[in-house]
Amino acid sequence: MKTLEELFLNELADIYDAEKRIAKTLPKMAKAAQSDELKEAIEAHLAETQEHATKVEEVFALFDQEPRSKTCEAAIGLLKEGEDIAAEFKGSPALDAAIIAAAQKVEHYEIASYGTLRTWAVLLENDDAAELLGEILDEEKAADGTLNDIAKSQSNDEAARAEMAAD
Amino acid sequence: MKTLEELFLNELADIYDAEKRIAKTLPKMAKAAQSDELKEAIEAHLAETQEHATKVEEVFALFDQEPRSKTCEAAIGLLKEGEDIAAEFKGSPALDAAIIAAAQKVEHYEIASYGTLRTWAVLLENDDAAELLGEILDEEKAADGTLNDIAKSQSNDEAARAEMAAD
Repeated sequence: MKTLEELFLNELADIYDAEKRIAKTLPKMAKAAQSDELKEAIEAHLAETQEHATKVEEVFALFDQEPRSKTCEAAIGLLKEGEDIAAEFKGSPALDAAIIAAAQKVEHYEIASYGTLRTWAVLLENDDAAELLGEILDEEKAADGTLNDIAKSQSNDEAARAEMAAD
Repeated sequence: MKTLEELFLNELADIYDAEKRIAKTLPKMAKAAQSDELKEAIEAHLAETQEHATKVEEVFALFDQEPRSKTCEAAIGLLKEGEDIAAEFKGSPALDAAIIAAAQKVEHYEIASYGTLRTWAVLLENDDAAELLGEILDEEKAADGTLNDIAKSQSNDEAARAEMAAD
């Protein structure tokens, strides 16, 4: 009979895989970004992503487990979609808006996953794990908020100006 | 030169495809769910999902476009992951917790997408489209909240009881 702890470890292996895939993709997104503000936000999030992978390893240790990865089909789909749209809008004034949208979808995947993991850690009465997962969750939400702010100011302003110029 | 309007229509075609894939998968999730509360929540969201597809068609019309789909790689990955985990935890007391987690990831994909689309509709000065997209966004957030409530009460209680019984 599979238990909640097995479900928790399964989900942890999924997000561990996702974090490593995201860490590989963020430098490409930073390179593609047009504005310095967006480049810097992505680079700052890359550093956080690497810390998150380390924290996930600590959570595995709190459950007396070695870190393990489980292929995250969702992250593969999300990241592929982001790369495709960035390629399609290369050279367009809407490119940064496209990159931000793709990055926010990745953030929301992580927010859903860490929210679930934290709830389950509480149920499994592992307070240290719940605290670590809560720290990551807060950083993912903050990263999403930063992308929102950039989207609403700079990138979309540029796109909107280009849109008006194209009319 | 690709414009923000093209990016908007591209994203709209992506979520239109996602909504149709989600509508096909929700009945399987409702059938797999163990508790009546979760079954009912998924069935209620199926009805909303069908309305969302209709509203997305209306948004296309507001931009003088026929509805079109673009294969949503992310939704494919998210839904496949949900089906796999539900199969893996079939018969487990943690099954409902697994279904809720998968459904919340889908909700978060939609929240990210409709949030982006609404922002872009405002920038494109199409108030009617922004309003329709905002209505869908609010329903997706409410559906996520309902899943949260169920996760925190019933399903996880069951899983926690089983976990304790297994100790």
